[in-house]
Amino acid sequence: MLGPYPLGACLPTFTSCADRYCLSGYGGGGKTMEEILDLAVQVKPLDGVELVGNWHVNDENIDEVAGMLRERKLKLCLLTPDLWTQAKWGKGSLAAGDKATRAAAVEEVKKVMDWAERLDCAYVNVWPGQDGYDYCFQADFPAAMKWLREGVARCAAHNPKVKVLVEYKLKEPRTHCYVNSASKVLLLLEGIENTGCLLDVGHALAAGENMAEAACLLAEYGKLDYIHLNDNYRSWDDDMLVSAVHVPEYLEFVYWLKRLDYQGWLTLDIFPYREEKIASAAESFAWLELLFAAVEKVGMKEIESVIRRGEGTEASRILRKMLS
Amino acid sequence: MLGPYPLGACLPTFTSCADRYCLSGYGGGGKTMEEILDLAVQVKPLDGVELVGNWHVNDENIDEVAGMLRERKLKLCLLTPDLWTQAKWGKGSLAAGDKATRAAAVEEVKKVMDWAERLDCAYVNVWPGQDGYDYCFQADFPAAMKWLREGVARCAAHNPKVKVLVEYKLKEPRTHCYVNSASKVLLLLEGIENTGCLLDVGHALAAGENMAEAACLLAEYGKLDYIHLNDNYRSWDDDMLVSAVHVPEYLEFVYWLKRLDYQGWLTLDIFPYREEKIASAAESFAWLELLFAAVEKVGMKEIESVIRRGEGTEASRILRKMLS
Amino acid sequence: MLGPYPLGACLPTFTSCADRYCLSGYGGGGKTMEEILDLAVQVKPLDGVELVGNWHVNDENIDEVAGMLRERKLKLCLLTPDLWTQAKWGKGSLAAGDKATRAAAVEEVKKVMDWAERLDCAYVNVWPGQDGYDYCFQADFPAAMKWLREGVARCAAHNPKVKVLVEYKLKEPRTHCYVNSASKVLLLLEGIENTGCLLDVGHALAAGENMAEAACLLAEYGKLDYIHLNDNYRSWDDDMLVSAVHVPEYLEFVYWLKRLDYQGWLTLDIFPYREEKIASAAESFAWLELLFAAVEKVGMKEIESVIRRGEGTEASRILRKMLS
Amino acid sequence: MLGPYPLGACLPTFTSCADRYCLSGYGGGGKTMEEILDLAVQVKPLDGVELVGNWHVNDENIDEVAGMLRERKLKLCLLTPDLWTQAKWGKGSLAAGDKATRAAAVEEVKKVMDWAERLDCAYVNVWPGQDGYDYCFQADFPAAMKWLREGVARCAAHNPKVKVLVEYKLKEPRTHCYVNSASKVLLLLEGIENTGCLLDVGHALAAGENMAEAACLLAEYGKLDYIHLNDNYRSWDDDMLVSAVHVPEYLEFVYWLKRLDYQGWLTLDIFPYREEKIASAAESFAWLELLFAAVEKVGMKEIESVIRRGEGTEASRILRKMLS
Repeated sequence: MLGPYPLGACLPTFTSCADRYCLSGYGGGGKTMEEILDLAVQVKPLDGVELVGNWHVNDENIDEVAGMLRERKLKLCLLTPDLWTQAKWGKGSLAAGDKATRAAAVEEVKKVMDWAERLDCAYVNVWPGQDGYDYCFQADFPAAMKWLREGVARCAAHNPKVKVLVEYKLKEPRTHCYVNSASKVLLLLEGIENTGCLLDVGHALAAGENMAEAACLLAEYGKLDYIHLNDNYRSWDDDMLVSAVHVPEYLEFVYWLKRLDYQGWLTLDIFPYREEKIASAAESFAWLELLFAAVEKVGMKEIESVIRRGEGTEASRILRKMLS
Repeated sequence: MLGPYPLGACLPTFTSCADRYCLSGYGGGGKTMEEILDLAVQVKPLDGVELVGNWHVNDENIDEVAGMLRERKLKLCLLTPDLWTQAKWGKGSLAAGDKATRAAAVEEVKKVMDWAERLDCAYVNVWPGQDGYDYCFQADFPAAMKWLREGVARCAAHNPKVKVLVEYKLKEPRTHCYVNSASKVLLLLEGIENTGCLLDVGHALAAGENMAEAACLLAEYGKLDYIHLNDNYRSWDDDMLVSAVHVPEYLEFVYWLKRLDYQGWLTLDIFPYREEKIASAAESFAWLELLFAAVEKVGMKEIESVIRRGEGTEASRILRKMLS
Repeated sequence: MLGPYPLGACLPTFTSCADRYCLSGYGGGGKTMEEILDLAVQVKPLDGVELVGNWHVNDENIDEVAGMLRERKLKLCLLTPDLWTQAKWGKGSLAAGDKATRAAAVEEVKKVMDWAERLDCAYVNVWPGQDGYDYCFQADFPAAMKWLREGVARCAAHNPKVKVLVEYKLKEPRTHCYVNSASKVLLLLEGIENTGCLLDVGHALAAGENMAEAACLLAEYGKLDYIHLNDNYRSWDDDMLVSAVHVPEYLEFVYWLKRLDYQGWLTLDIFPYREEKIASAAESFAWLELLFAAVEKVGMKEIESVIRRGEGTEASRILRKMLS
Repeated sequence: MLGPYPLGACLPTFTSCADRYCLSGYGGGGKTMEEILDLAVQVKPLDGVELVGNWHVNDENIDEVAGMLRERKLKLCLLTPDLWTQAKWGKGSLAAGDKATRAAAVEEVKKVMDWAERLDCAYVNVWPGQDGYDYCFQADFPAAMKWLREGVARCAAHNPKVKVLVEYKLKEPRTHCYVNSASKVLLLLEGIENTGCLLDVGHALAAGENMAEAACLLAEYGKLDYIHLNDNYRSWDDDMLVSAVHVPEYLEFVYWLKRLDYQGWLTLDIFPYREEKIASAAESFAWLELLFAAVEKVGMKEIESVIRRGEGTEASRILRKMLS
């Protein structure tokens, strides 16, 4: 039932997941990249993986990485420049107050775009997680938006074969990130060719959004390019297994993906801190199957007619029908 | 499947639901009490209704009310003294700064206890919703707790045939209510005979609790006496249909009700503002059936063994099994 | 110090404030419009008031209302079509699923625009509070955005002498409102002449925004037209007195209003449910003076240089300096 | 003005602060313990520091540590057993499902209690941060409470010269921690001698509490033993500088500390991820001075009379007076 969708996973799914207390991670660490990929292929429906620039790919190992993926018949769904794990990005990357840091961030993205092209990967993902603020009187809001626009535009112009996606998030690692909602991304990307949005379901939830509504909005502007799946309790990006918390919202999301005729990647971005790694990925895809099957059982037509009438009790009834 | 549980409903379920913008309600108002009860009985599994002192019952009409209920074979599951809809309670009832108001609140509860006894109703519900504060430097915290304890104790001592329940809520109508969590209720009621707790699922959710955990805690202290069902999006007491939002939490809750051998009322406290009234109640009970059936399908034993192992992927898998 | 800003107030500030429990309000009700305005003028710095179409103004009394304001030297800062207090708008106004309701909403706004012109008022405020949803599978997201755009465009084209403002809010009265953030308003209004945004500080806070950041974003697009002041605890629109909760955020907001050279109205939209009415308004303006004075004491230049360096400890220090 | 209060700091204040993205920290790492203490003493008002068992103290270095502190005239305010940074505690410590892990946790606390005694430290701090759950159907709620009680009781009985404090937190590192509020701690500690509560202001805020109310409640039960200072935006434990966000709440808290005649430690538990370390601590104490001075300027009597009347506008006015 998941047929039309290419399915992917980020690598943290298969390795050690650390938090600020347990910096060495709760288990699963110490693996080579080949070992991680060997775990990944054990998750049957997987078509591809995401890699991060410099963590996994660099000028020296790029051909080797290409080989590792080829051998395992894994596509590279996304390559992400690392703009957040090093102290040098701590006060921002594309929107850092420091001009040289902003320039370095742009160069980082460009370099990774070229790697992406060499690895047959259509997208890089700019997540400006460090671009934000923590304290009042710490942010120059108009300058930050200007710098973000300029930075994204310079990246997007660099290599037309690789599209620059922007991922939004309300907070973490900053208490306030500038690019914090689907609407904000659309304002940011307006008029910049070769750009799109990466919708992370958990980020949408933590931003107070309904992810189906976010997907519709992005699609309206032609910017719904890529999707990260996970779940959380809304107040934080817990990166839990798919549909662990938001069952009705996930069903509605799946319905709209079908109605919007979304054709892109559905990629796991989960952090199974204390959980078995392969089981977590497999379980997430099993949930995804349940969700698609539930929607198909009731049928697009019937759902559409309930939506059109907009009556709460009917909405409740059709949800119940999906789960009966 | 709902066999062992007596099922009830609050009357707002069947009448006009107003909010602060639409004070006349979104429809369904203007009914006599008999008309409301006639709607209620159309909801098949209903065993009883909740009434509110002075709104529905008073010294003059009490025998008439008894008759109305008898004719319709409805029990009175709960009688609630009105300590919140009149401006005189605006700055508090049992914990008001004004001594006379506190005394009046106690008298109001006592009077309603005696009505409850006459109506064969085992419980009154003290909801100290106006007892709280909005601004910093507005509350005398130690005094408020002392007054609440004294007030509840005086009520509880009044009539041993009617148990005094206390319902907690984090906020609304005050931005901060004193009695705001299951733990706080237990501290409040400690050592006071003839008292218990009314667990409103939506209040638990809005207080950041998992309602199954709240139920277990209350049961440990012998205070899980009565349950209100509804749902919301956590930031407010939206009083939505059962399981509209929190499907995994509701399944876990139902599992624990069975494991704790809860035997009391399961009563709807929903506000179907824009929804059809009877359909909303019927739909809520249909959800309740789905939840119990899902738990029973998997079985108490298997769930218990998953809980005992405490592995996240197994928890996800068993949840999925319940909904497949 | 508040010299350059015209100061206003909504009328609920001076009359009965009801909530869903205490529908008759906590006191202060039962006044004629003249009596309310007589209270308003007792708040010294007040330059104008907001009125609501049909509540306060109609075809019959419009000249009389003009006279009442003239006598008291009060301007009409804003006239708001009532799209939310009647059951007929319960399932939406500009974005209702029902076509006739959408058309009626547009007519309501147009009528109020013409009244506004006659009353020398530059703005009407479209608050699509009922346009949203409560349950999953209840909303047609793309259609709703389309209807909202069409409706606003038709209103905005009606009378070029009166600007159509749109006020955003995350939730209430619906659990999800479509027009829920500053960014969303900007997307909505894009390309529609004669429109702007009403920034309600409490709505920004409840939407998880920093209101200074929201103001900067709106100003960048030339849409920061009008401001409502109040405060809350973020999870709900508590409509409390100015700066009751968010002192640092309010200081930063005031700084940016000055830096952005905002010249529009600063209008109270508070609901002093249990508080004295005139004192609440006076106190709110006194807070506003404190905030402006604190910013001016430290000076725009020094604040700007702290912002430029973006160091958290310096941000903390300058905040402390403002309040010492 | 801070005279009567002994002032302390946790060591992360002076060293590298990592988060889950930047595991090597944003700067300030790589220091020996002596170097860290040398930074600490540069913060003038500091009377003591907190240490963590095994990180800073062990059987080998305990006399050396005693010497380091003595030389710098620093007291050891608190010694905390590390029950959270190692993968072995990942599924719980005192309330782990695994019996051997529970026993190991108790032994860890006991060992640290004896070290505390040797270092003239009156308290150890049990923070059961890993004791909780992430997924529905993962927790055995009644068993967890029982294990927590048993574990705490066994620790508390071990060494009467060292008091066992328990620190509560709503979430992180688990999405749900069992010991999540002031009320829950009181229920947990009931009837167990030689125990008390560590009130972390940021944990109270993130749990939806007003920290003044929490302090009053703990004091009523004789369990307000120790206080951690920091601030956050409520949805997460951001560990920011004192009073960076919650100015009115902090003023009210300081007022109640005085009224309750609290005499214990006021210790910084801040994580200045991107900030200068010494400046962050100094700034936090400077804020504390501002808060105490503001309360004293207005005076305890006047504040008490405002509280007694409970009028919102008066509460706003007295807050304004404190900050004028």
